[in-house]
Amino acid sequence: MKEILIPSQENIFQAHERIRPFIHRTPVLSSQLLNKLAHAELFFKCENFQKVGAFKYRGASNAILKLLEKNAGIKAVATHSSGNHAQALALAAKVHGFDAHIVMPENAPLVKQNAVKDYGGKIYLCKPTLAAREEKLNEVVKLTGAHVIHPYNMYDIIEAQATAAKELIDDFPNLDAIVCPVGGGGLLSGTLLAAHYFSPKTLVFAAEPEGANDAFNSFKEHKFIASENPYTIADGLLTSLGDKTYPIIMQYVTDIFTVSDAEIIHAMKLIWERMKIIIEPSSAVVFAVVLKNKRIFENRKIGLILSGGNIDLTKIPF
Amino acid sequence: MKEILIPSQENIFQAHERIRPFIHRTPVLSSQLLNKLAHAELFFKCENFQKVGAFKYRGASNAILKLLEKNAGIKAVATHSSGNHAQALALAAKVHGFDAHIVMPENAPLVKQNAVKDYGGKIYLCKPTLAAREEKLNEVVKLTGAHVIHPYNMYDIIEAQATAAKELIDDFPNLDAIVCPVGGGGLLSGTLLAAHYFSPKTLVFAAEPEGANDAFNSFKEHKFIASENPYTIADGLLTSLGDKTYPIIMQYVTDIFTVSDAEIIHAMKLIWERMKIIIEPSSAVVFAVVLKNKRIFENRKIGLILSGGNIDLTKIPF
Repeated sequence: MKEILIPSQENIFQAHERIRPFIHRTPVLSSQLLNKLAHAELFFKCENFQKVGAFKYRGASNAILKLLEKNAGIKAVATHSSGNHAQALALAAKVHGFDAHIVMPENAPLVKQNAVKDYGGKIYLCKPTLAAREEKLNEVVKLTGAHVIHPYNMYDIIEAQATAAKELIDDFPNLDAIVCPVGGGGLLSGTLLAAHYFSPKTLVFAAEPEGANDAFNSFKEHKFIASENPYTIADGLLTSLGDKTYPIIMQYVTDIFTVSDAEIIHAMKLIWERMKIIIEPSSAVVFAVVLKNKRIFENRKIGLILSGGNIDLTKIPF
Repeated sequence: MKEILIPSQENIFQAHERIRPFIHRTPVLSSQLLNKLAHAELFFKCENFQKVGAFKYRGASNAILKLLEKNAGIKAVATHSSGNHAQALALAAKVHGFDAHIVMPENAPLVKQNAVKDYGGKIYLCKPTLAAREEKLNEVVKLTGAHVIHPYNMYDIIEAQATAAKELIDDFPNLDAIVCPVGGGGLLSGTLLAAHYFSPKTLVFAAEPEGANDAFNSFKEHKFIASENPYTIADGLLTSLGDKTYPIIMQYVTDIFTVSDAEIIHAMKLIWERMKIIIEPSSAVVFAVVLKNKRIFENRKIGLILSGGNIDLTKIPF
């Protein structure tokens, strides 16, 4: 047996105090029509309305604010990301007077590259493999002295992503369950810890695309199994768990459910049509899981974490 | 000179009290990015989050509740509409135990016909001309004894559409101006009266598509000019003003601006992308007008009425 130190209740509480002035307290929305479809009472935590359109801004802000608190003279951060973390880190860096060096695969959509540039981030393109990304990131760090902020496998990130669920629990203290998407596991680990500390009676379920089901496989086999050639429309959930997120998830998650891309697209369309909000496919995974597992969720009060709303509007899958 | 009686401050106040338990108090959203683009402080009143996805539910609810108050034994309502009013009347009828008889042109999209059916409305199809619609409506009324609820040219409707702007003014009492879309003029008349009574210092501007610019022409020529063969992507704004809405608009509107369909689509895409909310083209007209007339709106506090969010997601114009 090995003991590990994970973020405490106090860490999450402090992270929330730290980032609160810089983030949006996102609304929790409901829809009678979707309740009727799901035969449950649904509470959607809308991180699509968070700054940069995703929960990632919580973690990026916390990591940078902690660097500031340490007063170590670091004024640059770096990461590799093709997604929401890149934008979040670029904006949080700009807000707090840091430089942001962002390694992106050369096939990253121009719209995402431009978003990072708009926020003042400096982009370094590389081949679209994990090895190439890490190599390029190492180069950039050597060159710039920037501090690396990992997208999810880092406690400074996890304790801040926990604050989305903490706010949801503050607003609705009697949830029977929370359903949270899982990719690298930063949001899920945080959500699990928030429920554990602030609402221990609330079960937490993870929602994962069939095409990137490493968390599901790891949970069923009780060992770490990485994704191989993951493919899903939920492009925020392609990554595998990390060594910081994996143990938290294995210890606290109630169950992990997978859904197909068709089910994700169907759920996304329902939310767009009925709730009139724009969510990205990675967010729709949670509602797809609720629709698919009525025996679990029927007649319950369910919190659903909508992780973000960044989608290329010229490539809508319906 | 002819004196006319229009809804009073007290009428609007009572309409609000009457419908309040049955409608959503919709949120007012802001976006720093859109403020930056417009060089103004923008407050979006989100009627896309209203029941049935449009402000029309306010008017339909008020008209039916007033029938109930009169206790005249009427238990059926009828209208002709291919749009949001049809859905609004069908749902309001259902909620209050009325039958709803809805005349729709036979080319009305199936998705709209189905929405009316889902709310329990009975549909009567007719040829897609105004004459055919009115003729069919007369038949239906003779057959059923239903009370006709016009989509906009009726004070019971106008006094209730006023409550959207009234809520906006309650939430943000210091607006320099409100920009409101104009089609038949129900929402605009109501908005003008709300500002006149509850915030007389707030100017009200109307926003109209170039392809259906009857209000613009009427305002410039000081006489009623109907639309001829209107064509615009803002399909909620195709209708001409009515004899109840025209005089209110001529008396109280500060100015009317038109925008092209390209400008409407551009504004709609910005709101979808940046605010992560779904609005229909008829709602985007107001933001397009603000972007196009910076000399008027720059550095001001501007309320924008987003009228609805019902759009066929398989036919997005970008």
